[in-house]
Amino acid sequence: METKRLEAFSDGVLAILITIMVLELRVPEGDDLSSLRGLWPVFLSYVLSFVFLAIYWNNHHHLLAAARRVNGAVLWSNIHLLFWLSLVPFVTGWMGENRFAPVPTAAYGVILLLAAIAYVILQGRILALEGPDSTLARAVGTDWKGKLSPVLYAVAIPSAFIHQAIAGGLYAAVALIWLIPDRRIERALADAP
Amino acid sequence: METKRLEAFSDGVLAILITIMVLELRVPEGDDLSSLRGLWPVFLSYVLSFVFLAIYWNNHHHLLAAARRVNGAVLWSNIHLLFWLSLVPFVTGWMGENRFAPVPTAAYGVILLLAAIAYVILQGRILALEGPDSTLARAVGTDWKGKLSPVLYAVAIPSAFIHQAIAGGLYAAVALIWLIPDRRIERALADAP
Amino acid sequence: METKRLEAFSDGVLAILITIMVLELRVPEGDDLSSLRGLWPVFLSYVLSFVFLAIYWNNHHHLLAAARRVNGAVLWSNIHLLFWLSLVPFVTGWMGENRFAPVPTAAYGVILLLAAIAYVILQGRILALEGPDSTLARAVGTDWKGKLSPVLYAVAIPSAFIHQAIAGGLYAAVALIWLIPDRRIERALADAP
Amino acid sequence: METKRLEAFSDGVLAILITIMVLELRVPEGDDLSSLRGLWPVFLSYVLSFVFLAIYWNNHHHLLAAARRVNGAVLWSNIHLLFWLSLVPFVTGWMGENRFAPVPTAAYGVILLLAAIAYVILQGRILALEGPDSTLARAVGTDWKGKLSPVLYAVAIPSAFIHQAIAGGLYAAVALIWLIPDRRIERALADAP
Repeated sequence: METKRLEAFSDGVLAILITIMVLELRVPEGDDLSSLRGLWPVFLSYVLSFVFLAIYWNNHHHLLAAARRVNGAVLWSNIHLLFWLSLVPFVTGWMGENRFAPVPTAAYGVILLLAAIAYVILQGRILALEGPDSTLARAVGTDWKGKLSPVLYAVAIPSAFIHQAIAGGLYAAVALIWLIPDRRIERALADAP
Repeated sequence: METKRLEAFSDGVLAILITIMVLELRVPEGDDLSSLRGLWPVFLSYVLSFVFLAIYWNNHHHLLAAARRVNGAVLWSNIHLLFWLSLVPFVTGWMGENRFAPVPTAAYGVILLLAAIAYVILQGRILALEGPDSTLARAVGTDWKGKLSPVLYAVAIPSAFIHQAIAGGLYAAVALIWLIPDRRIERALADAP
Repeated sequence: METKRLEAFSDGVLAILITIMVLELRVPEGDDLSSLRGLWPVFLSYVLSFVFLAIYWNNHHHLLAAARRVNGAVLWSNIHLLFWLSLVPFVTGWMGENRFAPVPTAAYGVILLLAAIAYVILQGRILALEGPDSTLARAVGTDWKGKLSPVLYAVAIPSAFIHQAIAGGLYAAVALIWLIPDRRIERALADAP
Repeated sequence: METKRLEAFSDGVLAILITIMVLELRVPEGDDLSSLRGLWPVFLSYVLSFVFLAIYWNNHHHLLAAARRVNGAVLWSNIHLLFWLSLVPFVTGWMGENRFAPVPTAAYGVILLLAAIAYVILQGRILALEGPDSTLARAVGTDWKGKLSPVLYAVAIPSAFIHQAIAGGLYAAVALIWLIPDRRIERALADAP
């Protein structure tokens, strides 16, 4: 029951974050197709952030489905993760409205990096509670995705100052890695007694 | 339990979408009835989108009530549907503030068409998991509404350039088709053992 | 299980409505107490609408706690109620920003009247499903509050054109009638086997 | 079941409040780091309020996990608490946009004080229902944190007129007191049969 309310609150925050980003997509003045043209960087960054928040929801879903208990450390690690994710609409708007200028594009990567670190911390707190022989521990395994993502962000952030397309490409690459559904936990859960 | 969290997240997103649209209804400057007059196209498009999002919530409710399992493909098909629905407030505002000008009215239909296709995909993924002999498969049956809706949208989109009232009438027609409650699934569920 | 998702969606919409009204409370320019002075009509209408939406949530909570089933008519009656309630932030902002001018104050009453009628319809649809001998039917009883409220609104609306304080006083009176907790359903539920 | 819907509605409101505060973090005009500089008081007050709302969610979570019943007095005490919390985004924005000017900083403390009192009232209503020998009564115990917080707010409010850093420091001190996880209820629950 404890995990349910944590899920409910996280789902609420994630659902709101993923939805209020659309408020940054301001209704254009004109009524022809050309008035949409100026919106494409805002739209593109919206799509990217929508996918990232959806990935977080999806992974969070799997992580908590496998957790059986929650303690104070887990609750606060979760709030810490939600804090960094709550800044995603801000950096999304900043990056989109400045057409992927170097500083906002790097700032976008910084928030993604901090959120990724917060996720690793949350996962660690839950694993510490579940124990090394738990279903979840076997499911998470080596977690190469979780280890590779911060590295790619750390490379993307300075690369935004060389060319923003490198940073954007690396962000998209991380999203694609995660879009491949995480069968590890699904399988381990299915095998569990 | 898996389907419950999917429902909760979808309900959250749909509830927020249906509600933030009201933020487009900007409080008018004047304090007399005539100051409301300029709002009618915004209000009319608000009502239309409110009904569409309510229909999606209603059908989604019935669809998931009949589903017993969820996998990665279902989760992502659901997120794909929510993505197109998340653009409804944007096109609603654009259409309403431009008094049903041809391009925004056609754009509104494009988003509805893409959401309808996403719903068909989601239904297909759930049916694939439930199997051809499931309660849901019998309940969905021939799904003439689901097949007719995209056709009507596809006709409405170009017709917005002839006269926007044709497109608007077709959107309203689709809404009316769905407003007649979907007794198919209700009945099949009632018959299920 | 059916009623749970209806509750979840309604809770979501009501929680968002009650919260986005605060966005109308725009942060004032100045940094002294006098800069708050101009906000009092907006604040007062915020408090009134907060109380009204809380009453609706509270009554809706009791109504659905006593309901055991849901059908298409109930689902759509519920959406109909949510539609009128979704316009509360709009009329709240219009009334507050125009310092309770006659037309916006009357418009506020019109939305409250339509929401009250929608609530009576929803209650009727649920009662029709539960049957005349149900716990809920006994709990609702004569429902003098539900019958008195629309009458008071209908009196308040034209009275806004005589003096807005009469309308405002009547709105506050309706709120006070409902603030006295509805012990009828609580008691009947406690007596139920 | 009664407590579940109260939790769901409260979680919804808290999730929305914690998230819409980010809308006050307006996307800056420039695309360099210096354009972020003007945002730091808004960001700092955002962080403070995020932590406060998270603490309220966390404590509310523990309080209701230990409650077994809900009555009209509890429902309305809860709505009373949510009302004061709903004003947090307003005072957060006012304080941040005026760079911690005395009046907005004191106003921030007034809202925190009123919310703290509302929480004490809610806790009292739940304890009255649970009885003096309940798990919750033992868990809450002397509640020194709940008694100290209003005192610190009451000191902080006038001190904002001496120097805003004193008020800010006291607000941060209250947050830190609560950030230390509330093991009392956790332990008592674990000991409960």
